[in-house]
Amino acid sequence: MRASMLSDWLAQRIERTGGQPIYRQLYGLLQQAILSRELPAGTKVPSSRLLASELGLGRNTVTQVYEQLALEGYVWSATGQGTFVSDSAPDEIVGADSAAHDTAPAEPRVLSARGARLLQGAGVSQRQGGAFMPGVPDVSRFPAAVWSRLQSKYWRRLPPDLLTYAPGGGSPKLRQVLADYLRTSRSVHCTPEQIIVTTGIHQSVDLAVRLLSDSGDVIWTEDPCYWGVRSVLQVSGLSLKAIPVDAEGINPSADDLADPPKLMLVTPSHQYPLGMVMSLARRRMLLEFARQNGCWIIEDDYDSEFRYGSRPLASLQGLDTAGQVIYVGSFGKTLFPGLRIGYIVVPEGLSTSFATASAELYREGQLLQQAVLAEFIAEGHFTSHIRRMRGIYGQRRQILLDTIRKRYGDALQIVGGDAGLHLVLRLPNGVDDREVAKAALAINIVVRPLSGYFLRREEGMSGLLIGYGCVAEDEIEPAFEKLATVLDPALAGRG
Amino acid sequence: MRASMLSDWLAQRIERTGGQPIYRQLYGLLQQAILSRELPAGTKVPSSRLLASELGLGRNTVTQVYEQLALEGYVWSATGQGTFVSDSAPDEIVGADSAAHDTAPAEPRVLSARGARLLQGAGVSQRQGGAFMPGVPDVSRFPAAVWSRLQSKYWRRLPPDLLTYAPGGGSPKLRQVLADYLRTSRSVHCTPEQIIVTTGIHQSVDLAVRLLSDSGDVIWTEDPCYWGVRSVLQVSGLSLKAIPVDAEGINPSADDLADPPKLMLVTPSHQYPLGMVMSLARRRMLLEFARQNGCWIIEDDYDSEFRYGSRPLASLQGLDTAGQVIYVGSFGKTLFPGLRIGYIVVPEGLSTSFATASAELYREGQLLQQAVLAEFIAEGHFTSHIRRMRGIYGQRRQILLDTIRKRYGDALQIVGGDAGLHLVLRLPNGVDDREVAKAALAINIVVRPLSGYFLRREEGMSGLLIGYGCVAEDEIEPAFEKLATVLDPALAGRG
Repeated sequence: MRASMLSDWLAQRIERTGGQPIYRQLYGLLQQAILSRELPAGTKVPSSRLLASELGLGRNTVTQVYEQLALEGYVWSATGQGTFVSDSAPDEIVGADSAAHDTAPAEPRVLSARGARLLQGAGVSQRQGGAFMPGVPDVSRFPAAVWSRLQSKYWRRLPPDLLTYAPGGGSPKLRQVLADYLRTSRSVHCTPEQIIVTTGIHQSVDLAVRLLSDSGDVIWTEDPCYWGVRSVLQVSGLSLKAIPVDAEGINPSADDLADPPKLMLVTPSHQYPLGMVMSLARRRMLLEFARQNGCWIIEDDYDSEFRYGSRPLASLQGLDTAGQVIYVGSFGKTLFPGLRIGYIVVPEGLSTSFATASAELYREGQLLQQAVLAEFIAEGHFTSHIRRMRGIYGQRRQILLDTIRKRYGDALQIVGGDAGLHLVLRLPNGVDDREVAKAALAINIVVRPLSGYFLRREEGMSGLLIGYGCVAEDEIEPAFEKLATVLDPALAGRG
Repeated sequence: MRASMLSDWLAQRIERTGGQPIYRQLYGLLQQAILSRELPAGTKVPSSRLLASELGLGRNTVTQVYEQLALEGYVWSATGQGTFVSDSAPDEIVGADSAAHDTAPAEPRVLSARGARLLQGAGVSQRQGGAFMPGVPDVSRFPAAVWSRLQSKYWRRLPPDLLTYAPGGGSPKLRQVLADYLRTSRSVHCTPEQIIVTTGIHQSVDLAVRLLSDSGDVIWTEDPCYWGVRSVLQVSGLSLKAIPVDAEGINPSADDLADPPKLMLVTPSHQYPLGMVMSLARRRMLLEFARQNGCWIIEDDYDSEFRYGSRPLASLQGLDTAGQVIYVGSFGKTLFPGLRIGYIVVPEGLSTSFATASAELYREGQLLQQAVLAEFIAEGHFTSHIRRMRGIYGQRRQILLDTIRKRYGDALQIVGGDAGLHLVLRLPNGVDDREVAKAALAINIVVRPLSGYFLRREEGMSGLLIGYGCVAEDEIEPAFEKLATVLDPALAGRG
């Protein structure tokens, strides 16, 4: 429509009697003409004086409508030149479907495909402690007084550069202390520069997969594995291939080996959640396979500090001569989860890339907290805390084992109890572990169904993850008896 | 090339006299044949015995070359079956540019495409303060004693649940206090449940784009814009469309409006880095456009607390009646960058999804620090700190403005000085701002080249971001005089 035809077009549509107020009608019709592109962007509209006269309206009415449209960005005025339909106005908004206005606008309130999948598969719990939450340490035993004293000391002297953004990689002091600790306790060989301080396993894995893989690349994960890392991998666009585990750890078939992935993520020192230790033969095989095929291995060394009886094997990273292992760990279980300090050890030659990317992507800070942690470790509080907690957790584990045996004898198999903060109580096939977990939650007992950790649902084994880390000694037996009240009917009802 | 032709191909290229050692030549030629895909992945190469005999070489030479190639991932051997060109070997690495080989050895340990792009575009600086680092507040004025006292109080009484993982969304107390603060100071309308506590703008944007968009979706960003967020968007697989800004803020053309994006990211209260305020008309237009097309608007309300003179406009979120604005902010500039506490305000109906996804993806903690912050705000320390800092920054800004005027009069335009912690000194076209910034860094003065903030390089304007937030009053003039020693020759030398 040309601007000169506007008054005719409007005159035909304005209802002089019985309709809405004229002001309202005129506003609505002009808006519609602009939105439907009847009046294209850039069109000069008639002056308010002219339009008012052609339509037989008061000039004030037209002026007010023009002002309202200008306020909302539909038109704009240039002094002395007139009023124009905005360039940048919502002129392309509705397209052909002008019927859409009256009802609902387009429905934007949906999650993206990756967002919906993330939420659908979310494993996170509202509960963060109590019987029998797996993976949560007893934070009440944390030496708060020591920590608080070190922290206050830093706040008193306060070097201002501890309050700014972290230069990529984190506190140099912490990286130095960590390199020593990892070498002596985990046989991880690295310089301080190869260590990038992160907020934990999630961020470490996120950083590694974003730098080392592209959307659509394949990553092998153990099946079963930790749900949280699975979510991080999926949302980064990786294609997950679930590889079964056997008594020696991840166990790729000949077909799997014929089709090498870009990355793999393994838990050699203590498979999560089943607890087996990867054999030395399997470790060497994986390293050789990775070397031949240029794959990256992410070694998640969670929980390796808490072993009862057996000595831990050295890390996979320590066996790696080709620079293909990315080692990740955190202080969430050894100190307290809310601390959010973890680390990633990268091969030589990648440290600058990782440090820069970490600063660029996450804009990290928390240097003061990292300095406190460095001092906490350097003064020996870390190792003595671990030693103390290993004793406490070992005792709780024993109470739980005794309680289970007393109740079920050898009828139910217990796996994964040699290390970490939980064990797995296997249930006979046919018992729906998700139903048991749900019934337990209803009586305020948290257990996690083992089948939920499997990516290949059809392979999922029935069982319960029972955490003992954050349950006081005298609460373990009563809580387990409570759990048994929902477990017994499930065991009786199968078949 | 078929494997049977390999020995002819090699024979033509090996220089028997005067060249490199035969071993070295054979290795280089085979590497080249594999990298250039003359020998495709999966090709079975001749046995060492056969190749040695066809080329008239010692078998040991060939065996050693094969072993070296296997070690580097170019080929692999299956016992009894022969030697094959690797599938996932570095065959895609170098592409056509085979000149690179002779120098660099096989390098399968390369970054992913997204990782390489991220590093190539990385804007992060090694420097985190000093004249004239933009975007960094003066952390030496932070009321450390107050903060430390509140912190010690929490550590003394220590409710253990402050040390565990955060339930999705963060500290309820902080969310409550924040809802009040944002309503009164920024006209943001939300319940505490709509606020998700994050580690800052980067994480807020990461969360939003992962939940609301998929890889390949288009996002509009202002051009110029903040490099850090740009990196977060790119690494999430989004396709960035740079939209120019004018005096009223982001200014999409009719063509842009005809092709609505999935999301847009804007800085309405203070365009970053140019500083203009988005007009009300433009705001209404954007909101209407987003409503009609189901786009999401991410409103980055950084720095809105520091305005000198003018009152801030209300947030875009406060004008949004359709629930399409995602509002993000942080305490990095108002308190200290290393704190790593930010927030995202989501429309009603999305709060549970965002809270769950945040816990699932980032496994957040830091509840104790969040509780300290909540008390810091509730006790009034936050607003009085902002008031004090606004006075200090206002004074520094004035000193800088006076210094620039004294030196350059009106020859150089100053933009964006009404708010925030930096201003932009425009340079005439033809002056290479990157070169000026580089020369300044060499004499220990940090300025950032304005052209580096443009996504469309050809549109980039020349200028310098000059931060005054973290420069003491008496250092501003001397530092600017130092800067002038590299700026003057650049200004003189143009044309």
